[in-house]
Amino acid sequence: MSQIKRTEIAELGEFGLIDELTKGHNTKCKTTLRGVGDDAAVVAAGRDDAVVVSTDSLLEGIDFDLTYFPLKHLGYKAVVVGVSDVLAMNAMPEQVTISLGVSSKMSVEALKDLYEGIYFACDELGVDLVGGDTRASVTGLVINITAMGRAKRKAISYRSGAQFNDLICITGNLGASYMGLQLLEREKRVLSGIDNPEPQFKGYEYLLQRYLKPRARKDIIELLAEEKIVPTSMIDLSDGLASEVLQICKSSKCGARIYLDRIPIAKQTTALAEEMHIDPVVAALNGGEDYELMFTVPLAMQEQVMRLGVVDVVGHITRETTGAYLVTPDGSDIKLRAQGFKEE
Amino acid sequence: MSQIKRTEIAELGEFGLIDELTKGHNTKCKTTLRGVGDDAAVVAAGRDDAVVVSTDSLLEGIDFDLTYFPLKHLGYKAVVVGVSDVLAMNAMPEQVTISLGVSSKMSVEALKDLYEGIYFACDELGVDLVGGDTRASVTGLVINITAMGRAKRKAISYRSGAQFNDLICITGNLGASYMGLQLLEREKRVLSGIDNPEPQFKGYEYLLQRYLKPRARKDIIELLAEEKIVPTSMIDLSDGLASEVLQICKSSKCGARIYLDRIPIAKQTTALAEEMHIDPVVAALNGGEDYELMFTVPLAMQEQVMRLGVVDVVGHITRETTGAYLVTPDGSDIKLRAQGFKEE
Repeated sequence: MSQIKRTEIAELGEFGLIDELTKGHNTKCKTTLRGVGDDAAVVAAGRDDAVVVSTDSLLEGIDFDLTYFPLKHLGYKAVVVGVSDVLAMNAMPEQVTISLGVSSKMSVEALKDLYEGIYFACDELGVDLVGGDTRASVTGLVINITAMGRAKRKAISYRSGAQFNDLICITGNLGASYMGLQLLEREKRVLSGIDNPEPQFKGYEYLLQRYLKPRARKDIIELLAEEKIVPTSMIDLSDGLASEVLQICKSSKCGARIYLDRIPIAKQTTALAEEMHIDPVVAALNGGEDYELMFTVPLAMQEQVMRLGVVDVVGHITRETTGAYLVTPDGSDIKLRAQGFKEE
Repeated sequence: MSQIKRTEIAELGEFGLIDELTKGHNTKCKTTLRGVGDDAAVVAAGRDDAVVVSTDSLLEGIDFDLTYFPLKHLGYKAVVVGVSDVLAMNAMPEQVTISLGVSSKMSVEALKDLYEGIYFACDELGVDLVGGDTRASVTGLVINITAMGRAKRKAISYRSGAQFNDLICITGNLGASYMGLQLLEREKRVLSGIDNPEPQFKGYEYLLQRYLKPRARKDIIELLAEEKIVPTSMIDLSDGLASEVLQICKSSKCGARIYLDRIPIAKQTTALAEEMHIDPVVAALNGGEDYELMFTVPLAMQEQVMRLGVVDVVGHITRETTGAYLVTPDGSDIKLRAQGFKEE
């Protein structure tokens, strides 16, 4: 009997898996300016411009729970998830397509709610819904979003451009979305089986909003353009700070030092984290779904970046050999680790 | 008590559903040349060119059955499904992205098989795999493919361009993929519960190939370009001839007459259909997944089109008021009907 080799996906982790599946394949089309390995692919559009394109899936039971995720919000969030990847290339979003797998249990009215959220986000972000298909699904709701955008080729920020001594900048605050999810999950557990459940969200509305209706930071891309700042590298914070820092380090062949006490965390995030005995820094590092932007700029631009008023400098880029570390207030270094395909 | 209205998706059908969800929304971006309603969306790329983009999902249990669909073939077919929509715009395919939802039951080796098929199709069609993500799924395998291509703006064939008296042309033959699927399903039923099943496919290998490894008709787009033929309208045959003729009629505000005895059907298709007591014409009209192209050209181009040697003229475009009909050899007219979201 022949022995067929079987490797579990969890053994490789998500990064390792993509490397394993795509290694040894190079792009061949002249118009492909960047393939696999960034927030979005980049294709030529005219002599100086480029179109960026990114695709993401949201799967019921993995990415959302319809018992507490309103369909309008879900439609809105799907667009944000897609557009956020376009923004992370320093490009302006223009079009999205939505492909749905829908259980026949779902009514037309429910689908209309989903689309209302999709169109609301499109209008807010100035993008067009230009296509998609709706298919039957025997399982749960499946949402796929493809987002496209445009930029001058020389203004595109790749993950691979971070340089030694660059400052690492972050917009907004981190961990709030993760704590919003924890709150929703807690109330679902507590109220399970109760007829007229009245979940307790008081004081934590901000966290729910960050999870259920995150915003895409188009304002940051506009601000950077106004100030003529082109980040040396950029990524959106969808998988948590630790994972994204490691992505930048891997692509840019560099190390990084992140100062724990500079990570922006909202009051409500800290309050709920303490109530639930979760370390708020862990929520920021590994929680994910913040859809804020992380970017790097040369040290010389520190003042210019601070003048933006919407950015925190949380660390700096080091040599590749020194690795990626979180520096605690007492000066000890903790090696950054990514969350994989499965939480370990 | 308030009464919440509930409309079943099946009541509207797939066309009605998309209309219902997207009505009243116009595109706003200057770069959006065509939004919802064609095989692919069209966005500006330089002054004379355009990028077309299309997105499709393949869902386990709906679009494929892993008990008989080899993963390599499935990866190949996913690329073909995406690229076929690009070709249907008379555009040359250039890039694809693949987004996967994968059960943790699936091994890395199985995923590699899937990717082998994806890359094989990419190499054959000269397109680059430029992105995608791989996510956990609690349900079955979910494959989303986004395909991009490029064309001169004035060479793009929309569904909406068919004119009165245009000839309706079809590449290849129809219904073979559907009969391939029927054969696989029959053998699965017959051999269910048997330890070492030996399915009987002899004589019908062509049908299996058409279902499991359909080709995308890039050769046709190249041939049309060489012969300087720009179809007045074009669509790919993914949902069956009846449905696609109705799509062209709806978009072009016209009617059509299709001559039953001119519909190209392969010998093996007819043979198995007769064996299984299925009308081969029904397989051609409603079977789907042929991934051939249907296009219209002015009557004056009849000779030029016939010289291509790879096309059948199956009918012609009429006035909108006369409707869309199938004409039988005895001269009777049968009104064409589309298959909806659910078979009725």
